This record gives sequence, structure tokens and C-alpha cells, in this order.
Amino acid sequence: MASAVTPRNEDYSQWYLDIVKNANLASNSAVRGCMVIKPYGFGIWERMQRQLDDMFKETGHQNAYFPLFIPKSFLSKEAAHVEGFAKECAVVTHYRLMNAPDGSGVIVDPEAKLEEELIVRPTSETIIWNTYRDWVTSYRDLPLLINQWANVVRWEMRTRLFLRTAEFLWQEGHTAHATAEEAQAETLQMQEVYATFAEEYMAMPVIRGYKTENERFAGADNTYTIEALMQDGKALQAGTSHNLGQNFAKAFDVKFANKDNQEEYVYATSWGVSTRLIGGLIMTHSDDEGLVLPPRLAPIQVVIIPIPKPNEALDAKAAELLAAFKARGVRVSYDSDDTKRPGFKFAENELKGIPVRLGLGSRDLENGTIEVARRDNKTKESQPLEGIVDHVVSLLDDIQNNLFQRALDFRTAHTHHVDTFEEFEAILNRDIPGFIYAHWDGTTETELKIKEMTKATIRCIPNDAPEEAGKCILTGKPSHRRVIFAKAY
Amino acid sequence: MASAVTPRNEDYSQWYLDIVKNANLASNSAVRGCMVIKPYGFGIWERMQRQLDDMFKETGHQNAYFPLFIPKSFLSKEAAHVEGFAKECAVVTHYRLMNAPDGSGVIVDPEAKLEEELIVRPTSETIIWNTYRDWVTSYRDLPLLINQWANVVRWEMRTRLFLRTAEFLWQEGHTAHATAEEAQAETLQMQEVYATFAEEYMAMPVIRGYKTENERFAGADNTYTIEALMQDGKALQAGTSHNLGQNFAKAFDVKFANKDNQEEYVYATSWGVSTRLIGGLIMTHSDDEGLVLPPRLAPIQVVIIPIPKPNEALDAKAAELLAAFKARGVRVSYDSDDTKRPGFKFAENELKGIPVRLGLGSRDLENGTIEVARRDNKTKESQPLEGIVDHVVSLLDDIQNNLFQRALDFRTAHTHHVDTFEEFEAILNRDIPGFIYAHWDGTTETELKIKEMTKATIRCIPNDAPEEAGKCILTGKPSHRRVIFAKAY
Repeated sequence: MASAVTPRNEDYSQWYLDIVKNANLASNSAVRGCMVIKPYGFGIWERMQRQLDDMFKETGHQNAYFPLFIPKSFLSKEAAHVEGFAKECAVVTHYRLMNAPDGSGVIVDPEAKLEEELIVRPTSETIIWNTYRDWVTSYRDLPLLINQWANVVRWEMRTRLFLRTAEFLWQEGHTAHATAEEAQAETLQMQEVYATFAEEYMAMPVIRGYKTENERFAGADNTYTIEALMQDGKALQAGTSHNLGQNFAKAFDVKFANKDNQEEYVYATSWGVSTRLIGGLIMTHSDDEGLVLPPRLAPIQVVIIPIPKPNEALDAKAAELLAAFKARGVRVSYDSDDTKRPGFKFAENELKGIPVRLGLGSRDLENGTIEVARRDNKTKESQPLEGIVDHVVSLLDDIQNNLFQRALDFRTAHTHHVDTFEEFEAILNRDIPGFIYAHWDGTTETELKIKEMTKATIRCIPNDAPEEAGKCILTGKPSHRRVIFAKAY
Repeated sequence: MASAVTPRNEDYSQWYLDIVKNANLASNSAVRGCMVIKPYGFGIWERMQRQLDDMFKETGHQNAYFPLFIPKSFLSKEAAHVEGFAKECAVVTHYRLMNAPDGSGVIVDPEAKLEEELIVRPTSETIIWNTYRDWVTSYRDLPLLINQWANVVRWEMRTRLFLRTAEFLWQEGHTAHATAEEAQAETLQMQEVYATFAEEYMAMPVIRGYKTENERFAGADNTYTIEALMQDGKALQAGTSHNLGQNFAKAFDVKFANKDNQEEYVYATSWGVSTRLIGGLIMTHSDDEGLVLPPRLAPIQVVIIPIPKPNEALDAKAAELLAAFKARGVRVSYDSDDTKRPGFKFAENELKGIPVRLGLGSRDLENGTIEVARRDNKTKESQPLEGIVDHVVSLLDDIQNNLFQRALDFRTAHTHHVDTFEEFEAILNRDIPGFIYAHWDGTTETELKIKEMTKATIRCIPNDAPEEAGKCILTGKPSHRRVIFAKAY
């Protein structure tokens, strides 16, 4: 039997870690807070990367690469930015080791001290805007539409695989524009790219909204976000897109001559998603049997299992099916290991979240049938072998859609509109609290007080929040639209 | 006019830097020795990555990701390894900044000192073999065939864009095997993958060989290499594949139960190529007009230029051609900027190394012709518009082959067999020295003495070096095969 998973309703956190471990997605490393992403987990990340990269390029962006290290003094140049990141920076102070005089191994060579300490990038606005100063002279150099795939480090004290790690992989877009309007349009466009990716590829419905001042990125004028609801009723911030205004251009003195030949500071955006998305993917779809993957991101979409074990006829038929599936672009594998029994393989493939399992037995061959099992709803049925590839290709679409619909139904069932603080607290005290639409008086003071009292934060103000007169659930002061509260990762 | 390039015969180093700068490939950054890879340069790297990644996967490898940081003590575990890397390690000692008491910005918080310093990976054998200990129990867990795309840091004192930088991008394969034979087969297989990539994609002929003991990777039993010859007659080590024997398994105590249920140490290989390849690509093909790119790696393969400037009829024809080229998988662009004259555009596209330029004029349209200019040999000819896509597709293959052949001819013309030290020195004193096949007595002492006297190093012993009795060019002692000497990057 493949390793079991703790049921969600017994211990949700342990369930999550069991899936990450037993489905071979990632593990902790010898370095505190840094993870090893194992091949199967990395295969999911590669599919995410490939798709996002295509979407970035379709919207006119190019990739580039900027240094891992940031001179310490750069961080100080944007006041809000340094405030946001200084407490979690890994700092390089030396560049050489030497043999310890007592022969115990190597020590840091005290003579090899850097003149200025270097920060391992927690995000790259500062080093990039210092570079853009050399790239931008005139409006003709704009816009700059650049993305970077990179590792970043934030020395977090409490870490959890994928969701919060000291080092993580991400992409960070950094664009430069001639007008505030263009920067705003870019910010919204990239939020929409992220939302499309989340919904169409991850099958994870998201709310498109923007952050309160208190929750904004350090150095941004406005932070747009996509927020998803996990199965334990907590929110996950899945991607952010920042309108940075002229803040970084001013900090790094990046000006351009506009069409009237007047000097102006450049307008900026930045936007990113990270390996955290894998955590979101797990917590959106998986169940007590293990991982559940949407077909579009599954490294293996279909597994064929010979029943009860491989033989010449089954191997031959499987080879034929493999070729037919591959010709249709389906990622398929044949589990021909004859040391394991079908029941073990079924459990193992369920744990790995492979969307479709095909059971191929000798009697099937005689009858011209094959058993088709869906991972998402655990139904199975016998199907004619004739036309099976078409059937499975269409089934993969059904599964993709079903996962999205199921997640959307879950979110709908756990979305609440409340008008009093009592209702608000009652919802938050449920086992699965969810999203709460409520009125808020617009002050950071009230926001922080609510967070202190309930641990709920304002996840976002939806982009499309309608005007609605109401009263703040805490202070009773007037409000013009509802915001979304939730407990969050 | 696009920025000019210093001619090669005037100042080769400056020529190289001019191309890197003026073709917008990369630039130095605010961090000593770390480069910014600009979008056009990164586009070349992306094509290299994609192709190599496909080749790794075809040979059964999977990608994974290991931490950026390595605990200092790990480095000490393999004696030769720490000896090789300790002097160029960036060391993280702290994890937090704080406001300076004098208000001058931020300083490193002395209270946030790490218990054990962390090394920014110069290569990942140590952290990976520390992880493999948990992954390998029995021969059934082997082989492990894993690759990682990552950034690494080696604090080099003298840096040059792409060729030697403090931070660089690379891939590092790390495999684990049950037998010495399998590890050796893997080592050779990956050398051959690199050689195939270099020759078929970069159009850069390489010698397949192995290193002398003195030039081996720190911790390897044997280092295989591919060596290319640059246009200034210096060698470039373009990729290495190491048979690590059981050295890292012993250092990190990675054992497995073999089929006879006996414990054995695991056998290892590692292999890598880096952004240095871009330097090799530049120095193999480019000329005094700028970059020359082999079609298979060129981000843009064909550029269409309206002559003398865009108009409705030319735009319409160009749109038709763009669609037809794209349908054939050709990377094509239309330079419709009407603020620049054709001559300027020609020079600009030459500088960028775009393999084929199509000049489309109004008279061409009438005549049903188009001007086709090759970047590699600077010939141009008028061609019928009818069938132009087929013609260009086949031309791109010709250019790819021609570049390889030209580089091979250059190497042949600059390859020498010498039997005396006088001849040896005479060749090395030429403007373009090249590869020198000579006899060597097999001792590190002689190798180092020759290096000290001439700056030439033994690049490799060719895999297929025939047995041949001879005398060492320096000591006259007996030798059984020739090795290849060269000055090198």
C-alpha cells in the first residue's frame, strides 16, 4: 500500500504535509526554511512556467536576468520598500573561506570582508530600476516589458513547504511606462493574465481585487491581487500585480524625455507568482486519497495499468495506446512494474493525482473494452477500446471543467455576506470559515483591530465591487462598498 | 548608423565586449562581477535551454530544484572539493538588517547572526548528495537521473561578460548509479549530448576529451570535456561531465543495498554547461560587423525590411510573408519603423546577427522578386517572391551548415602537431595560436612547468587519441599518445 494520508477533517495541516511528502512533491532540506523540489513537484512547476511564459510573451513581454545580489544601500533608497523587506534579508558579508587554524575544517576568512554587504534579492525592484536608469532616455525607449524567472530569499521565521519558504522560485515582471495610464493598464492586464491562468489551467477560481493600503506591497501605490479559497476555508493570495507609480523611478532617478522633450519620471509596475501556487493547487483539489491534479498541469495525464500484470498481449496493446495518446499530445505512461499488484498501483496513482487511470486486462482485450477510472470523482466505467483515445481526450476536458466547477461551488457555498460583528465572528468560528463580504470604514486602524480580534484580514476590495451604502461591522461608520475578509495563509 | 564594433585584428578583447554591448546581449551591473543578461542575450540562452532540456529528457533525466544555500560544514566533507571552491565562496552570515542608529540608512543587524554560515552554491554536489542519502536505500531506487537549472556564484577576481562572471546561469546534472560502469556510461553519454548540442545547434565544432589530473573538477575521478577553438586561437572549455566515483557518496554516507543485499556506496556523475556558451557562440562565428548567429539558436531568424520605407502595399505583402513564415515555424520579424533608413536598419540587423535579411521594395513587388541577404557570408541575391518561404527555410539550413563548416575549417587550419619545444613555442607566439597536439610525459610537474613557461595548458586528452610512441616536448621522456595544448579562456 502506498503511504497513507492523514484525513483532512482530522488534521488539515498534516494532511497537506502528507500529500507534499507522499506524492513526492518536495521535502525540507538541511538549510532552515529552504525546500528541495522533487522531480514530480518540479514537473508541475515546469508546466506552470511554460504556460505563464507563453502568456507573458503573448502580451509582449521578454525575459531577462538581473543579479542575485543587491547592494545593501540600494534597499534604503525607497523608504517603504526597505521597511518591508529589511527584517527578512539574507546578507552576504564575505567572499572566501579558509582552513581553520585548529584543523577542524573551514571558517570564514575574516580578511575577505566585502566593502559593502550584499543582500540576496527578496525581490528585484531596486537592482532593476538601478539598471533601467541606463536603458531609458526618451519615450522611444518605453515601454520596457520585462520578466525574470528567478529564485528569491526572504528569511521567514515560520515556513511551510511551497506556501512560505525562505527561498522560493518565482517570476517577477518589471515594466516601465511613459504614462500613469499605461502603467495602470499593464497592472490590470497582468492581474487578468494571472486570473486566467489560475482559472483555466489550475482550475482554481479567484477573486480579482485590490489590497488596502495596509496590505500593499512595500513601495507600491496600488496592489492588485487574485485571491483563492482553500478547502479549509482560508484564503490564499495567489498572485499580485503592483502599480508602483513613480516611486522607484524617483528613488533611482530614472527619467525620460517625453514627446514634448520634457523630463519626467518613468512609471512602473511589477507583478509576480511563485511556487506558492503549487500549495494552492494542492489545497484546492486534493482529497484524503492524495493529490488531485487538473489535467492541463498534470505531468502525467493518463496511466495505463496491466491487470493483473503485464504480459505480451497487454504490453503490445499498451504500446499501441501509448503511441496513439502521444500522437494526440496526451502525457501518458504505462505502469509495467511486475513487482507490484494492481491495488497497490491504483493507490499509488491516486496519491500522485493522475487524472485518468486505464485498467487493461486480458478479458478486456477479448471483449474489446478497457476500464476508465477518473481521479476527480472516483467513478469508473468500462469503455470500448475502439475510440478510447477520443473518449479520454474529451474526458480530460470534462475533468478540468469539473474540478473548476467543484472549486467554484465550494467557494460559493463558503462565501458569506454579513452585516454585524456577531455574524462575522460566528462565521469565522466555523470549521470552514470562507470569504466574508462585509462593510468596513476604510481605516487602517479598524482593519488592524479586526485582525487582532479575529485573525481575519481584508483580502481585497473586489475590482468590480458595486457601490452599496452600509455600516462598518466594527465601528458602525459609513461605508460605500463591501470588502472581503478571511483568515489567510 | 548603429554603434560600431572595434575590428578583431585591432583589439580582440574590445571587439568581444563591443559585440556584447552593442548587440544588446548583456551588461555589467552595480554588483562586482555580476552581469545583467538583456532580453536579446537571454533569448539566445532560452533557445539553448529549451534544446538542452529536451535532450536531457530524451536521455531519461528529470528536473528538480535544490537550495541556493549550502551549510559551510558540507563543503568540508569532500577534501578535494573544499580545496577547489573555498577561495571563491560568497558567504551569508546574517539574516536581517536594521536602521542605523545615526539615521544613515540600514546596517546589518549584529544580533541576527546565523549559527552556521551559509555558502551561496558554487556548484551543488554537496547539498544534493546530502539529500540523496534520504532518497536511496536499495538498487531499486537507482539510477537517479536528475538535472537542475540554476544560478551559481563563484567569487572570481577577474571577470568577463558571459565567459567568467561571479554569478552565472547553468544546468547541473547529478546522477546516482549502482555500478561504476553505469556511472562511466552516463558520464560519456552526457559529454556526447553536449558535443551534439555544440555542433548541431551552436555550429561550434568541439574536441571530445578528458582532463589531466591537474585540471580535473574538484572531487572527480575523471573529468570529460568538450573544447572549442575561438577565432583568436584560444581554447574554450565549453562543457564538462564528471565521473565522481564514490567520492561524494562516501563523504555524505550514501549507501544502497545491492541485488545481493550487500551495502555499497553509490556511484555518481555530475555535468554542466553555462551561460559561458554564449561567449563561445559569439567568439566562434561573429565578425567585424557584429554578431553572427546560427539559425537554430537565433531569436529572430529572418527580418523583412521595407525599402525605402513602409507603405500600404509593402505592409500587406509583409503581413502575408510573416504569416507564411510563422506557419513554417520560422522566427521572423518585420522592421516597419519609419524613422530609420534602410542602411541604418541593415547595419543594425547585421550587428544583431540575424541570419537572413529580406529587402522588400516597391519595384520588387512589381517584378515579383525580393532581395535575400545572408548574414554569414554577406552575399545577396534577388529571388522570386513565389516560393520564397521554401527558399529561405532551406537557406537557413545552408547557413547553419556553412557556419559549422567554416568553424571546422578554421580549427583545422589552426591545429598543429609539433614534436619539439621550439616549434611549440613558435606556434604559441603566433597571433592565432590554435590547438597543438604534442607529446607529454604524463606528470603534473611537466604540465605546470609548460604552463608557467608558455601560458599554454593541456586542454584535454582526446577520447579517441591513438596510441603513438613519442617523447615529451619538454622533458624528452617517453609518451604514448599526444595531448592537446592551447592557451585558453
